[in-house]
Amino acid sequence: MEEIVDYVQNNISTFQDELKEFLKIPSISMLPEYKDDINRCAAYVANILKNAGMSRVEIFKTEGHPLVYGEWLGAPGKPIVLIYGHYDVQPVDPIELWETPPFEPVIKNGKIYARGTTDDKGQIFMHFKSVESFFKVDGSLPLNVKFIIEGEEETGSQNLESFINKNSEILKCDAVIISDTALFDKGVPTLTYGLRGLSYMEVEVSGPKADLHSGTYGGAVGNPINILAGMIAKLHDKNGRINIPHFYDDVLKITSKEKENFRRLKFSERKFAAEAGVRLLEGEKGYTTLQRIWARPSLDCNGICGGFTGKGAKTVITTKASAKISMRLVPNQDPNKISNLFKKYIKRIAPKSVKVEVRNLHGAFPVLTPLDNLATIAAAKAMEKAFNKKIVYMREGGSVPIVTVFSKKLNVPVVLMGLGLNSENLHSPNEHFDLNHFRLGILSSAYFMKEFSL
Amino acid sequence: MEEIVDYVQNNISTFQDELKEFLKIPSISMLPEYKDDINRCAAYVANILKNAGMSRVEIFKTEGHPLVYGEWLGAPGKPIVLIYGHYDVQPVDPIELWETPPFEPVIKNGKIYARGTTDDKGQIFMHFKSVESFFKVDGSLPLNVKFIIEGEEETGSQNLESFINKNSEILKCDAVIISDTALFDKGVPTLTYGLRGLSYMEVEVSGPKADLHSGTYGGAVGNPINILAGMIAKLHDKNGRINIPHFYDDVLKITSKEKENFRRLKFSERKFAAEAGVRLLEGEKGYTTLQRIWARPSLDCNGICGGFTGKGAKTVITTKASAKISMRLVPNQDPNKISNLFKKYIKRIAPKSVKVEVRNLHGAFPVLTPLDNLATIAAAKAMEKAFNKKIVYMREGGSVPIVTVFSKKLNVPVVLMGLGLNSENLHSPNEHFDLNHFRLGILSSAYFMKEFSL
Repeated sequence: MEEIVDYVQNNISTFQDELKEFLKIPSISMLPEYKDDINRCAAYVANILKNAGMSRVEIFKTEGHPLVYGEWLGAPGKPIVLIYGHYDVQPVDPIELWETPPFEPVIKNGKIYARGTTDDKGQIFMHFKSVESFFKVDGSLPLNVKFIIEGEEETGSQNLESFINKNSEILKCDAVIISDTALFDKGVPTLTYGLRGLSYMEVEVSGPKADLHSGTYGGAVGNPINILAGMIAKLHDKNGRINIPHFYDDVLKITSKEKENFRRLKFSERKFAAEAGVRLLEGEKGYTTLQRIWARPSLDCNGICGGFTGKGAKTVITTKASAKISMRLVPNQDPNKISNLFKKYIKRIAPKSVKVEVRNLHGAFPVLTPLDNLATIAAAKAMEKAFNKKIVYMREGGSVPIVTVFSKKLNVPVVLMGLGLNSENLHSPNEHFDLNHFRLGILSSAYFMKEFSL
Repeated sequence: MEEIVDYVQNNISTFQDELKEFLKIPSISMLPEYKDDINRCAAYVANILKNAGMSRVEIFKTEGHPLVYGEWLGAPGKPIVLIYGHYDVQPVDPIELWETPPFEPVIKNGKIYARGTTDDKGQIFMHFKSVESFFKVDGSLPLNVKFIIEGEEETGSQNLESFINKNSEILKCDAVIISDTALFDKGVPTLTYGLRGLSYMEVEVSGPKADLHSGTYGGAVGNPINILAGMIAKLHDKNGRINIPHFYDDVLKITSKEKENFRRLKFSERKFAAEAGVRLLEGEKGYTTLQRIWARPSLDCNGICGGFTGKGAKTVITTKASAKISMRLVPNQDPNKISNLFKKYIKRIAPKSVKVEVRNLHGAFPVLTPLDNLATIAAAKAMEKAFNKKIVYMREGGSVPIVTVFSKKLNVPVVLMGLGLNSENLHSPNEHFDLNHFRLGILSSAYFMKEFSL
């Protein structure tokens, strides 16, 4: 392994330059006007995989954006690891808050800034480079590798499940490894064993057929904005608990052993608040911040609009108001069941004076994986070697919807070896990725291939 | 008067054509990009007044949009009537809901469609044409007339009060007449003796410094949208009463005599709901619809925005959410006092985890005028003659902020002789004005000048 490590260390600045080229492609999956860039990005990934040494590379068309598959199966008898990641990125709004343009990567103070750096282009690039390093140094890999890099993660991986269903044979493997989560803290080797799920809804309240003058009608007709606000307010009780009947029915209680583990982690509330840019943390009564974000469900309005929002004072009662409302779920909540409970509750509390529509935009199952499988053990050893520090096990508040699909369909352990940081502005302006973690990620990936091959 | 009436009847289609030209000017006072059109419109009004026969016409610059003054004082010993109106119009959003373009007037089924038809270009045009008819037929007016036509009514008449203060000498008069309100019903001669006031506020809630990933932070930080919705929900109680402490302190109770008057009016709840385009009316418990819109205060969100409002599902906790919230006031509520109560209450219920700013965008005093003055008596007779029907006295839910200023500063009766209909989509798409009312309005104006001169 020494030669591999040396090769990575010696070529790290070339790897960074190559990553920059990858980041320049604005592969925003959510916005139809970037369709060409998405296709260009898929082709670009296919090319990287070929150059890295994969023996078979294929771009699969889906009903949405294409999916890139790569494999090298030249180590018969050795395990097969499937590496999953995504080449698509989030939209860049609000664009005016970016200090440098989102698709013109810049390195500042050991960090690379661009949309997609930490989520997820920078992280999948680590595996591309670890594979390449093995081929360059040894001419082969210590085990068999498959890559599946999709272009729809940021829009809910709508076509990945059907792809997996159709192609379970070529996806056969002994473990899945995903680098799309965060380290517990800077420089701390971390494996994530829990993820929250998601239920993302949209509520639209329709009232008058045309905008009304608020003088003529104010006080006598239901106002869609006030009504929507009232319904949103009813989604939480005064203790910060979610108010939807039966919402907590399937929530797994946090064990005292896990509470103890959370407590032992060096978590600073002050640092977390500073990273979030808020003056004060708040949440469900009776739980710590780590419990709230890792092991308790939450509900947030992600967007709201209605009526006159320009400058000045227009006195209208508007026709429609709508909100995007998403819930983070924890084991053993089922996103389909939760979406239905949400819908039912909203319909129940909706006044008769308006029409209320509820749409389910997407969902993901929560995840809690056991730690005693060979892949996780190998990953822990690998990261400890790369970082030269003891591994930390954590949960994570976000969702990687596809984890459940992999673990259920392929029936193998899914290892979450994320090298990002939650402070790296994923999904918001000035997204960045620590270049030291980028290097340690390449090494962790390489050590893992070695460890898991033994 | 017979000749005047004949002249109006014979020239009505010319008057309509002239009105169309006036309506073509997009004099939207709220949007800075229409500044040139506003100036063009002021010049256009000045020209109409000159052509109508005014002996002195002047465009006064203000800190905002110009104000057009016209006078004819050729009837010494006779009363002076001051006619107020506005040449500015509301914005046209949502433009896609207009069946014909807002600044290309079209006549359909006896109605003229365009922005500003009923509010207020069509209505001030009635007085222009009544004056012109007198000059054409008699070569003079039966009394002295002053016009004051402003360009900032739709943005709160910010500069009119200081103009009145500076020019109280030239504004001296015996009565003010304003046609910017509605008839009680189609073909019913109506004088309005009460108006609601207004307090228009803006609330902005600021949380995280940058958009946050709702997975990573959801459940542990205050969400500006949820918090704003919660505060809006707290503005009403479950009986539809406004929840702000001391809000009702100065509200004048509706007398049993007035209740009886309201009851006697031929008001159809079903028709009102149909005009509003709602399936069901709702409002403060214990009051009828007419009481709610005429004599009880109300609170409406006029607009709200925050977070991701595009297509799809972006999982952010946003930095800011804001709402425009306005209250309609009734005698004897004071908009300044109410704005302060609102501000105080919002600040009190705002959670400490966010920053909340409250701005007062504008205000207007409510109005309740006595009916026993000479001008009102003349106006009632005039309308009865024009319509050949008994006059109806009503209140109105909207505000004409300048009425209080006129009555307080000039200390004369203000007569609200509106010829619009509340169903004519003022402030919303497809605004229109009944052309029969347009004709009856010209006649009412002419009869008034005659009656008030006696």
